[in-house]
Amino acid sequence: MKLLQERIKKDGEVISSDVLHVDSFLNHQIDVALISELAREWYEHFKDAGVTKILTIEASGIGLACIAAQYFKVPVVYAKKSRSSSMSRDVYSTRVVSYTHGQSYEVRISQKYISKGDKVLLIDDFLAHGSALKVLINLAEMAGAKVVGAGIAIEKAYQMGGKDIRAMGYDVYSLAKIKSMSSDGGVVFED
Amino acid sequence: MKLLQERIKKDGEVISSDVLHVDSFLNHQIDVALISELAREWYEHFKDAGVTKILTIEASGIGLACIAAQYFKVPVVYAKKSRSSSMSRDVYSTRVVSYTHGQSYEVRISQKYISKGDKVLLIDDFLAHGSALKVLINLAEMAGAKVVGAGIAIEKAYQMGGKDIRAMGYDVYSLAKIKSMSSDGGVVFED
Repeated sequence: MKLLQERIKKDGEVISSDVLHVDSFLNHQIDVALISELAREWYEHFKDAGVTKILTIEASGIGLACIAAQYFKVPVVYAKKSRSSSMSRDVYSTRVVSYTHGQSYEVRISQKYISKGDKVLLIDDFLAHGSALKVLINLAEMAGAKVVGAGIAIEKAYQMGGKDIRAMGYDVYSLAKIKSMSSDGGVVFED
Repeated sequence: MKLLQERIKKDGEVISSDVLHVDSFLNHQIDVALISELAREWYEHFKDAGVTKILTIEASGIGLACIAAQYFKVPVVYAKKSRSSSMSRDVYSTRVVSYTHGQSYEVRISQKYISKGDKVLLIDDFLAHGSALKVLINLAEMAGAKVVGAGIAIEKAYQMGGKDIRAMGYDVYSLAKIKSMSSDGGVVFED
């Protein structure tokens, strides 16, 4: 998607060959007009998939998911992160290791809000190693729901997450796929 | 606001005289059509205030803030929480104690995204003791910005937060003000 690629080139900050800051428009300050265009792209791609719920993970996926939900006219559910283990019996939960923060944490959703029969679209801002997305797939499938695919803003295509998850048979639709980046050479996109 | 009061009566779960769960429509699963109506109310109230930024705090304020931003046509900035102290020089940060979780944490915003000259509208899902709102006021004012007011979904009006912050001169506009609640008697609203 040219609009997002251009915005990344203009306002993204390449910190290193693996760290891109987009906090001026995506995940600290949010340009809501921009993310509405991203959401429209996901909608065009997934509009015939019968989506009944949008599932994301706190915190940076929530704004994207809510704006996308306006197109699909379905509720958002956001998985919650906690460092403590879940004691509750009425949640689906799984443990995840964050490469970004070097910590592990528990991710949960209430069993009330995703059910067998739901067709779930996953939404997130970044896809790199794929740990967050795999956790969301895992939680949705614990609930007996069908994952119809994932709408991602920025994929680090040189990492394995996207390849792995596509190889599992999921439709991962990323709006900007980064082939490589460096603090002196900027960002190179696929396509 | 009748719509929100009725939804709380229908789908809110009163756990005790101080704990109300609204995670079926507001802060775990999100009914985006509902929060768009809340956002429209805030817009009607604050539309002439010259708002340039909407400021909220992760995670449960983000969806509300993004939908509200569509009416005001301004960016959202969400303050980030961290248990570690900030080492960075380019953030405004302050420490807050959460009554809900019994922990203290650091809250930060990048100095790049709120500036002198900004007119900031605060948005959050709940107002009780007011600690989150006071932190956001504090951060905005560190930046030299003017706080034009706060749009709140649910205020526990029997707690002091709203009274305190109104006494400081801020326009706090809460869409459902709870006078009292109990697990057998349900929720009683002001007005």
